[in-house]
Amino acid sequence: MATAVATIVADHPPAGISPSAEKLLAAASELMIERNSLNVSLSEIAERSGVNAALVKYHFGNKEGLLLALLARDAGSELRHLPHLLAQPISPSAKLKLHIAGIIRAYRRFPYLNRLIHLLLHASSDEAAAEVSDVFVKPLFEFQRRLLATGVAAGEFRAVDPVQFYTCLIGACDHLFFGRHVVSRVADVGAITEDDCRGYTAFLTDLICAGLVIAPAAGRATA
Amino acid sequence: MATAVATIVADHPPAGISPSAEKLLAAASELMIERNSLNVSLSEIAERSGVNAALVKYHFGNKEGLLLALLARDAGSELRHLPHLLAQPISPSAKLKLHIAGIIRAYRRFPYLNRLIHLLLHASSDEAAAEVSDVFVKPLFEFQRRLLATGVAAGEFRAVDPVQFYTCLIGACDHLFFGRHVVSRVADVGAITEDDCRGYTAFLTDLICAGLVIAPAAGRATA
Repeated sequence: MATAVATIVADHPPAGISPSAEKLLAAASELMIERNSLNVSLSEIAERSGVNAALVKYHFGNKEGLLLALLARDAGSELRHLPHLLAQPISPSAKLKLHIAGIIRAYRRFPYLNRLIHLLLHASSDEAAAEVSDVFVKPLFEFQRRLLATGVAAGEFRAVDPVQFYTCLIGACDHLFFGRHVVSRVADVGAITEDDCRGYTAFLTDLICAGLVIAPAAGRATA
Repeated sequence: MATAVATIVADHPPAGISPSAEKLLAAASELMIERNSLNVSLSEIAERSGVNAALVKYHFGNKEGLLLALLARDAGSELRHLPHLLAQPISPSAKLKLHIAGIIRAYRRFPYLNRLIHLLLHASSDEAAAEVSDVFVKPLFEFQRRLLATGVAAGEFRAVDPVQFYTCLIGACDHLFFGRHVVSRVADVGAITEDDCRGYTAFLTDLICAGLVIAPAAGRATA
């Protein structure tokens, strides 16, 4: 399974994934979004997908395998984008802005991503946890660490701790979705819209740039 | 149960809570912290507490009742503190700094608080969800809304959306604890220490103040 996940991420869309496996992943994703919870059984996933429940075992081995494949499907495209973003000929601030927007866009599509990673690191086999960590968490953290270092070297960012930065940014982005149900009960807001995402992206970008950026990149593209 | 919860919050320590009920709540809290998960059964809680499992029903009715009582126990003292903080003769910035430190301190003691509120709003009866919302979420949101308005009126803060502010602050604070297991696999950090809490409080306070504060309060206490 570990190798299969790495393959899905490296080579998307994976050559080996069949239409019935795709249907099962789509059904799992839909149910998790509808419930704002990972608490979805294999029989519910099979029923929603219209695929025979026996095919879960055939395609994914077990529920852990299905969740790993779902994570690979959902996080893969954003992760593959990170090295390209780092290599772009734009300022560190501009990259940071695109990165924040990219995280919120990914959570908008797959609001369960963070909790899925958390569950797989906590509740799965050691091998699967190591794979999740290496394939999904490390590239994101390393991207941020390198971006912060580049910004400091360019005189654009003040030096901050990458773990604190990662914690704050991921937590703030995730909570737009995870916390919506809670805040909507006490404030006059409903389900997240495109406007909400744009507004929150702007809010968070302004906040983080105000704290981080010490010198705007003069004469460079700031996207 | 709804009335009981309001009473526990309003009048802590609640007159009616017995030693065996306290033991059950302490055991539930310990298990949730150890596992970084709410996935704890009533029989595990009873076993850990040394209290007969039948007393869960006697004291709390069911698991929902136990979780509500746990939330009341854990969130109560921080919530009761908020009106006093708002009334202090210190600047809005100083109140904001104390508030951020207070949230992180509360999550340090009870790192499952956010997920407990989320679970109770999602998975419990309508009456319990309304009670959780009114008693635990609304006071926190309203405190922040009023603090932000006070800061704007005093010319200290720029105007921001209270929902965006709440979402960012709660998400960033919560993720220090919820996300630690994930980031510790890829960065050279272990379990959260007092130093980590102090460092993150300072980081987050600097970040939020940089984005929010437009004029420091001259000649006032800034705590």
